Amino acid sequence: MSSEIREVAIERVDGATRSGDRDRVVVEAPLQLRARGTPVATMMRTPGHDLELVRGLLHAESVTAGAITQADVDAAAFAGRGLLASAACGVCGRVAIADLELRAQEVTADTTLALDVLARLPEALRAAQSVFGQTGGLHGAALATPRGELVATREDVGRHNAVDKVAGWALANGLRASDHVLVLSGRLGYELVQKAVMLGVPIVVAVSAPSSLAIELAERFNVALAGFVRGSRANLYAHAWRFR
Amino acid sequence: MSSEIREVAIERVDGATRSGDRDRVVVEAPLQLRARGTPVATMMRTPGHDLELVRGLLHAESVTAGAITQADVDAAAFAGRGLLASAACGVCGRVAIADLELRAQEVTADTTLALDVLARLPEALRAAQSVFGQTGGLHGAALATPRGELVATREDVGRHNAVDKVAGWALANGLRASDHVLVLSGRLGYELVQKAVMLGVPIVVAVSAPSSLAIELAERFNVALAGFVRGSRANLYAHAWRFR
Repeated sequence: MSSEIREVAIERVDGATRSGDRDRVVVEAPLQLRARGTPVATMMRTPGHDLELVRGLLHAESVTAGAITQADVDAAAFAGRGLLASAACGVCGRVAIADLELRAQEVTADTTLALDVLARLPEALRAAQSVFGQTGGLHGAALATPRGELVATREDVGRHNAVDKVAGWALANGLRASDHVLVLSGRLGYELVQKAVMLGVPIVVAVSAPSSLAIELAERFNVALAGFVRGSRANLYAHAWRFR
Repeated sequence: MSSEIREVAIERVDGATRSGDRDRVVVEAPLQLRARGTPVATMMRTPGHDLELVRGLLHAESVTAGAITQADVDAAAFAGRGLLASAACGVCGRVAIADLELRAQEVTADTTLALDVLARLPEALRAAQSVFGQTGGLHGAALATPRGELVATREDVGRHNAVDKVAGWALANGLRASDHVLVLSGRLGYELVQKAVMLGVPIVVAVSAPSSLAIELAERFNVALAGFVRGSRANLYAHAWRFR
């Protein structure tokens, strides 16, 4: 299998049937950009074509860099220095998780979600996305109760902004996040699970695919993750015991 | 109409028929975050719920801020200072465009694209996205000739990363970007058009919706923009003369 794909164990839901299965997810891992050895930025990306990625990024940002070669990437991967630092994914995942461990605790609530409510949540979010209906151009995020009632829905051109907006609403209104579910209109990357952990939400539900790092983070912080929630089907990627 | 939506003039393509029409697009505009008057970050977002957005973001990033109130947002919008700066969208658009004008020139090539080639490009990209087919979790970007041949295709969990990767490939291989088309698998925000302009690509084609600022930028820098390219239908948002 290529470095861009990882196989993970999941539980597949189809109506009332649950069965163990394997699924292929896209790898998401950090790449650290350094100038003369000093870290200047860390980006999340899918491994592969790292040299092109950095060349393209520096050009778009009008940064003039010296000649960058594949040797820089390779050296960085092993020596942990140079222009780029690209570590093996297992290590990258651990670094990202360790960073969050300094700032957040695992979600201790024993909140669960019934499968029939899970199946209804994406359509409820879609129905509440008033601007998406008119433009097709927006990501949506909502906080819902375990009974399936949406208590806040926000939209934005940026997926992470929509989550920050519902989180801001929850903080301002003193919502008990540990009793709620975060529902997302699209794909599920590392950053979105991180925001759920920081808020203390125990269950994240997405219409589309999660990344490898999103799953690792959810596993570590006791957050349940459901993806590809479409009709009565869903894939359960982490802490499937929260779905019943 | 709400501040989240703008109506724009487009050309609608349906088979061989082209007709003038109006379309609603989502507004994308910068919000500048300041600490004691000093700019610390500028983010692109859809206007509305700005206070929640900042509260949620600061919490997720473990930044302890003093009490933020709606008055800060309102004061910033008018006085241009305080914690947040939220300007009217017309102004925001001009600021973002002025920033790019300092670094890039408009695309002068007179490259055009036949409508039957336009219709084929999204499917060609999808067919070339090998990892998406296995995981459903990746954005794709490709550079194509006006005859519809893909010369480079890249995938990534980040939409912008996929574009940086094809741009990096183009730079390393001395591609004449002015003779090529950038094809994107998803939605089309400001940042992606900016990358096209920096590379000198005259035509951008996307499967889904563009934002208001993406359209403004394309208009200003002589870049053609097609969105919702699905089968023989498409919406032409900017410089429709490049499609024939």
